[in-house]
Amino acid sequence: MSCDHPDLLPLDEALQRLWNALPAPDLPGLRAERDDPATDRASMDGVALKASEGRASRRVLGTLYAGSDPAVFAVAPGTAVRIMTGAALPPGADAIVPVEALATDGDTVRPQVDPKVGDHVRRQGEQARAGDQLLPAGTPLSAARLALFAQEGQLLPLRPRLRVGVASTGNELVPHPASHQIRDSNGPMLAALAHTLGADVDLRSALPDEPAALAAALQNPGDIRILLTSGGVSMGDHDHLPGVLKDLGATILFHKIRLKPGKPMLAALLGDLLLLGLPGNPVSAYVNGLLFLSLALARLEGRAAPDPWRRARLAAAVRNKGDRPLLHPCRLVEGRLEPLPGKGSADLVTLARADALAWIDAGGLEAGTKTRWMPVV
Amino acid sequence: MSCDHPDLLPLDEALQRLWNALPAPDLPGLRAERDDPATDRASMDGVALKASEGRASRRVLGTLYAGSDPAVFAVAPGTAVRIMTGAALPPGADAIVPVEALATDGDTVRPQVDPKVGDHVRRQGEQARAGDQLLPAGTPLSAARLALFAQEGQLLPLRPRLRVGVASTGNELVPHPASHQIRDSNGPMLAALAHTLGADVDLRSALPDEPAALAAALQNPGDIRILLTSGGVSMGDHDHLPGVLKDLGATILFHKIRLKPGKPMLAALLGDLLLLGLPGNPVSAYVNGLLFLSLALARLEGRAAPDPWRRARLAAAVRNKGDRPLLHPCRLVEGRLEPLPGKGSADLVTLARADALAWIDAGGLEAGTKTRWMPVV
Repeated sequence: MSCDHPDLLPLDEALQRLWNALPAPDLPGLRAERDDPATDRASMDGVALKASEGRASRRVLGTLYAGSDPAVFAVAPGTAVRIMTGAALPPGADAIVPVEALATDGDTVRPQVDPKVGDHVRRQGEQARAGDQLLPAGTPLSAARLALFAQEGQLLPLRPRLRVGVASTGNELVPHPASHQIRDSNGPMLAALAHTLGADVDLRSALPDEPAALAAALQNPGDIRILLTSGGVSMGDHDHLPGVLKDLGATILFHKIRLKPGKPMLAALLGDLLLLGLPGNPVSAYVNGLLFLSLALARLEGRAAPDPWRRARLAAAVRNKGDRPLLHPCRLVEGRLEPLPGKGSADLVTLARADALAWIDAGGLEAGTKTRWMPVV
Repeated sequence: MSCDHPDLLPLDEALQRLWNALPAPDLPGLRAERDDPATDRASMDGVALKASEGRASRRVLGTLYAGSDPAVFAVAPGTAVRIMTGAALPPGADAIVPVEALATDGDTVRPQVDPKVGDHVRRQGEQARAGDQLLPAGTPLSAARLALFAQEGQLLPLRPRLRVGVASTGNELVPHPASHQIRDSNGPMLAALAHTLGADVDLRSALPDEPAALAAALQNPGDIRILLTSGGVSMGDHDHLPGVLKDLGATILFHKIRLKPGKPMLAALLGDLLLLGLPGNPVSAYVNGLLFLSLALARLEGRAAPDPWRRARLAAAVRNKGDRPLLHPCRLVEGRLEPLPGKGSADLVTLARADALAWIDAGGLEAGTKTRWMPVV
């Protein structure tokens, strides 16, 4: 018997909806402040000379290092200047002959190759001209792009880490469980996940299955930008979160997605607070926490949307009788996905032993099929 | 003319050497404290009943929630107990019939299916028996594994972020550059990279090309575990870092690798301090910073070695006349790698526009070849 519904929101649409609902920070464009390079530069260690003099001997006038003012030398006929990578070319020189292609005798050098104009020279402006647009406005930030901003004189500060609250829900969660109770494992799991994804983490005590307790936690979230909860989003009598959010006037971005495990996944905005209401089963909480939190952090920090998916072939068939795509725990062995005999969304033991969660389309996939997978981090 | 050498250390061997040289934290194994689940549990919302009574009507005695003590009920013939996902089965019950498969009339329910023993029940110990080894000692940590530790009553603290110092070297690096000078862009780039990879960052002023200044920075590194430098590791007159490290008695893990850009890459241990001596050209510094820092952080934090590589086909041929593998900047377009017309290891503009760095074997690769690539983050 299937409890699935064809109208559930596909995962990729849910991710897109979350991305669109969150505000990106202001992402300024960047123009070149000056030519890049700002003057002709050596791209190897060697001597700077005039190419038209060919293999003739030259007297070495001195040495230019990266950052040296080249105007202290003038390369006249019969002369050359030793030069290090990154140094500006001295007046009169138009080529570099590398150290390895020189015969040296005291302060005299003789090229063993025929120099050509521009050899081993990075020409002024070859990468960009002053005023060129280097990055259009709205370009997501990255370490490489921050370097380009710095090169042009705009030192952007490191963005402070976003603060993420983590709170499991459930009356069954106690520190010293009887056989009908359990410890809170989702809280530490989601805290570690958020920490690994670069957030500051505020791990809170588990909340009871009481509307008033949930409402209080949502109305006074403290100094966090995102709240991860687990549990309370399904259809049981104790699944109070959707109703509480409705009462508080939250904007529900989506509730229920086309994914196994993880169907009850909920995302909502409550003022500036993003609530990711993860399902309570640990594998569901893990999968949805990784997918939705990594996307939300990237968006709010102005980075490009992360692509968690890689591709590999299945070493064995995986059945999927439902009509939702399944994420199935696998081990990676020699680049292939070996399915583990998992026991579903409550099976934390198998998740902890897995390297990968493999995407299994509704209906199942045969051995040897190439499919997408995400790493278990 | 090639300046390559067949005896350069291949990249993957350099990464392995760094991994082996760093101490992993103590990684304890984990045994199950009790059966998992500790008792039979409902895996769906429904009613708990005795399967042998088939489709007969039952009187509902009450409701069990996750965490409820099941001993308050006893399922005698003709009775059942409403039960929520995760709740322990009451005495006398051996199957769950889901809500969707029940006809309900007041406090009477009638199954619409033939219940079988164990239906929708997670059996006691089906995932693990008390005392079973869940994770062997030495297993790298992950969010999923920390959850398993928490489940068994061992709440491991989040590891504090490692502190990484960043210092560029070079007399050419000034805040207000003349045409023969440049700003420090590697420092902000590597700081952003370390921040993104989860480290705490101490970005320092650029160091001059003076052995005494480098020695002082290495002898008094301050409160950091890893120091990233850029520049000073090649063969020029101003490349003082290898000599300074030798004078200080550092253990050189490797110097010079078989990769373009990045040949001068150096790694060393100076007491507890890991020095990653990155080349000065920005693309070299970026590539090696990403590869070696992400590996070092994972090792020191007890995580599994990250695999930065994905695979895709080249949309166009890329030449590589040298005898080192080349990492070439590309854009990802519909899953294929479109090579950008980059200008080499000094070309920060092209790096900032790239999505990917594609691995091009010595000799070059044809259009359509599948190759490994790493994302530009």
